[in-house]
Amino acid sequence: MAYKPEKKIVLASGVFDLLHLGHVKFLEEAKKIGGEKAELVVIIARDSTVKKIKGRKPIMSEHQRRALVESLKVVDAAVLGFEKFDIEDVIERVKPDIIAFGYDQADMEKYVQKYVNNNNLSVKVVRISKFEEDALDSSSKIRQRIIEKFVR
Amino acid sequence: MAYKPEKKIVLASGVFDLLHLGHVKFLEEAKKIGGEKAELVVIIARDSTVKKIKGRKPIMSEHQRRALVESLKVVDAAVLGFEKFDIEDVIERVKPDIIAFGYDQADMEKYVQKYVNNNNLSVKVVRISKFEEDALDSSSKIRQRIIEKFVR
Repeated sequence: MAYKPEKKIVLASGVFDLLHLGHVKFLEEAKKIGGEKAELVVIIARDSTVKKIKGRKPIMSEHQRRALVESLKVVDAAVLGFEKFDIEDVIERVKPDIIAFGYDQADMEKYVQKYVNNNNLSVKVVRISKFEEDALDSSSKIRQRIIEKFVR
Repeated sequence: MAYKPEKKIVLASGVFDLLHLGHVKFLEEAKKIGGEKAELVVIIARDSTVKKIKGRKPIMSEHQRRALVESLKVVDAAVLGFEKFDIEDVIERVKPDIIAFGYDQADMEKYVQKYVNNNNLSVKVVRISKFEEDALDSSSKIRQRIIEKFVR
């Protein structure tokens, strides 16, 4: 990779439904990889994309999810994803130095790493491990806790 | 109130369970009242206090709620409340110029306004109106949506 003394752009992506500390820790770890001057851009999955993949829309709308993620200190910009995910288009638009994936994004990581290798791009693909401090570090666990508490 | 050209300290408080855009808008509006140099301090209600008042603990632990609120751009410091809420103690420790309350904090606002008047303190007590852009602007609505979607 060419030497770049200027700021590194780190790209992360996700649904970010029911925002929790696991999300924030993931974003903080991702940004750290870009060093002191890193800028963190986050792509928020569209409602339609989530519905296609998970079979249901998120609890919070894509506009709420985007605005909430952008209100985090660690995030420099949060943008809604493209209706049709296209890694070539994302790399062309965001020009990331680093693309970070979370513990539950293994398939996407493999797919992007392969694309980067095949096209000989100077983009570092990294995986952030899970944040384990508290049991409520995933949206599905939070949903489960709510259902247990309120539905009897 | 004495003229204070230096930064204004704005104090807000709440449970902040299941963080949503309504919370962020409330905090942003509160900080705005303090002007450009405002510093926003947020007191996070303890699990035990919420249990006493609402009859149940929040979904997210007090430590998660505090850390998540502090990770917001608009927040300068988030601290856990005192086991026993004591407005005299809060004013003494935080020394706020402004104390902001949300749309659902009418009782607390009255209580604090009365305390401020009786003690002739130079603290401005304000009420922030509800953010109405989206239906999912309260934690109880988010809980309800989750239950409707996942429990049938």
